[in-house]
Amino acid sequence: MAHAISVERTTANKAKPDASTLVFGKHFTDHMFIMEYDAGKGWHDPRIVPYQPIPLDPAAKVFHYGQTVFEGMKAYKTPGGPVLLFRPFKNLQRLNRSNARLSIPPIDEDLAMDALKQLLKVDEDWIPTTEGTSLYIRPFVISTQPTLGVNPSESYYFMIILSPVGSYYAEGINPVTIYVEPDYVRAVTGGVGNAKTGGNYAAGLRAQEEASGKGYSQVLWLDGVHRKYIEEVGSMNVFFKIAGKVVTPALNGSILDGVTRDSVIQLLKHWDIDVEERTISIDELVEAYRKGTLEEAFGTGTAAVISPIGELNWQGDKLTLNDGRTGPLSSRVYDFMTGLQRGAVEDPFGWVTKLE
Amino acid sequence: MAHAISVERTTANKAKPDASTLVFGKHFTDHMFIMEYDAGKGWHDPRIVPYQPIPLDPAAKVFHYGQTVFEGMKAYKTPGGPVLLFRPFKNLQRLNRSNARLSIPPIDEDLAMDALKQLLKVDEDWIPTTEGTSLYIRPFVISTQPTLGVNPSESYYFMIILSPVGSYYAEGINPVTIYVEPDYVRAVTGGVGNAKTGGNYAAGLRAQEEASGKGYSQVLWLDGVHRKYIEEVGSMNVFFKIAGKVVTPALNGSILDGVTRDSVIQLLKHWDIDVEERTISIDELVEAYRKGTLEEAFGTGTAAVISPIGELNWQGDKLTLNDGRTGPLSSRVYDFMTGLQRGAVEDPFGWVTKLE
Repeated sequence: MAHAISVERTTANKAKPDASTLVFGKHFTDHMFIMEYDAGKGWHDPRIVPYQPIPLDPAAKVFHYGQTVFEGMKAYKTPGGPVLLFRPFKNLQRLNRSNARLSIPPIDEDLAMDALKQLLKVDEDWIPTTEGTSLYIRPFVISTQPTLGVNPSESYYFMIILSPVGSYYAEGINPVTIYVEPDYVRAVTGGVGNAKTGGNYAAGLRAQEEASGKGYSQVLWLDGVHRKYIEEVGSMNVFFKIAGKVVTPALNGSILDGVTRDSVIQLLKHWDIDVEERTISIDELVEAYRKGTLEEAFGTGTAAVISPIGELNWQGDKLTLNDGRTGPLSSRVYDFMTGLQRGAVEDPFGWVTKLE
Repeated sequence: MAHAISVERTTANKAKPDASTLVFGKHFTDHMFIMEYDAGKGWHDPRIVPYQPIPLDPAAKVFHYGQTVFEGMKAYKTPGGPVLLFRPFKNLQRLNRSNARLSIPPIDEDLAMDALKQLLKVDEDWIPTTEGTSLYIRPFVISTQPTLGVNPSESYYFMIILSPVGSYYAEGINPVTIYVEPDYVRAVTGGVGNAKTGGNYAAGLRAQEEASGKGYSQVLWLDGVHRKYIEEVGSMNVFFKIAGKVVTPALNGSILDGVTRDSVIQLLKHWDIDVEERTISIDELVEAYRKGTLEEAFGTGTAAVISPIGELNWQGDKLTLNDGRTGPLSSRVYDFMTGLQRGAVEDPFGWVTKLE
């Protein structure tokens, strides 16, 4: 290993929140990982330090030109059990694909993995162990050069922060209602929709607010060219079960290549359930609904794992799926995936990594 | 005025850079303006303080979800003359349009104007006075809430920083070469292309790098739907002179509503030169070039004011404009606009604001 990661432990441990009160991304652990990049020097000074504010020049490019990327994953632990990670290298590989798209220098994936493992060891007692809880892991890169020219930064921070999170479904898995967005567009082919970068999320806020004002949880995004092909739901990938087959939008450059998406596709194949990655239009969905063959729909992402969809609102027409209840396939996928991730289900794929 | 702006002066003035060595956005003045927003409290504590790093929690939303907006304008001064601003309210109004698109609470434009004027008074001796130089003004908003949920932040900073900048054209106004981008897309209708937000600039970095590798200064952006209608050049609006008439892409939701763009349109009308805001395709440009009627092209923006285009590369075909030299209309517009901005040319529009 080229880099030794130094560790500075906090002298003031924070009080840990009660596992029953955990919400998503609000509490953070005692430590964080940080590494710096400077042009001509490369990535340097990887270190674990107490969780603390980072002082940045007001001209730092991250504040002006959005040159950022991030990742999201989770660590799981049962009482007395080992710390489990789910396909962590998939996320670190995607981090580097996002970096390439955003003109950010690549990060050594082995070093990042080593940093993550060491950070998890230092903050291991922050990993909640009750069912449904986990430790959310947020690696991210920000551009720090304090100059206002519009060009790639010559300096960056790569950081990892950790947040104990509660069950996404406090009262059991429940379907959400979705507004099919006719006006706003999240991303377009040729843009940065397949990179995990801040701008994609900023672009979705207004539509999400307006959908929320209409009583819907999230929006279903249509493509920016034809305004009819389905892309994502909120900040998740999306799956539909139509006449016994499962369909999910193909990766077209404007859709995020989700790790949960990929895992669900492999799982369905493992179960001998037909799954197609292809373009799927809102018209096809509506037609299947009218014929009674639109059986289930669900989103996939790291935070919720599986988020069943109970209703789609398309231009005022309400399509109720599976009577607004969680469908049997959604439940089966959710139970398997979450069981696998916390080590309660045998792993036929080699996806679960035990922390030594 | 609802808010009193407090002023804390620095005790350690920085050395000012020599006016002949100034580059864009590298040096910053002694002070900055900052104001905070918190949900339930509104914008509060407007203050001028010494220019200094801002400490932010690593979970601050700006680092993850790109919820930012910014503006750019300039202050001009001649030796012994007053400080001049160019249509500053246009920029502050656009800031609030950007805020609305990004789900950021609006800012009192009068307060922002007052803050800017006070900050300019405090740092007045930082405004360079040699011809071609100016003080670049960067107002911006960043989201600061330290939580990882994907939703609008409940807290923000609004800041103004100032940077003395040199002449954009150190050796006189010179045409640039432009690569017409066939693959990457900057923004699409329904997205955030007409808001001045970081994500639009991050999305352009990779294309700019690749064009630069091919020997071109900037890219010409085509629309994301048809991939043939012209949108912007680099981070500027763009104008073409075809058979005596001037054409600029109409505001379609994915193009920035530039203050220099609007000013140039009004100026051309004032000069009785035909100017059309409409869709214009790359095919129309190529056809005009072949007929010999594509006379000039230039970009418009706050930084360069006018940036003449000497060559367009479209799929390997090189279109040389006005023999690669700055055209007469480009020169005339540049001379008038920069003369107006520094107070050397009479202002028939009421655009120039004198700082009392």
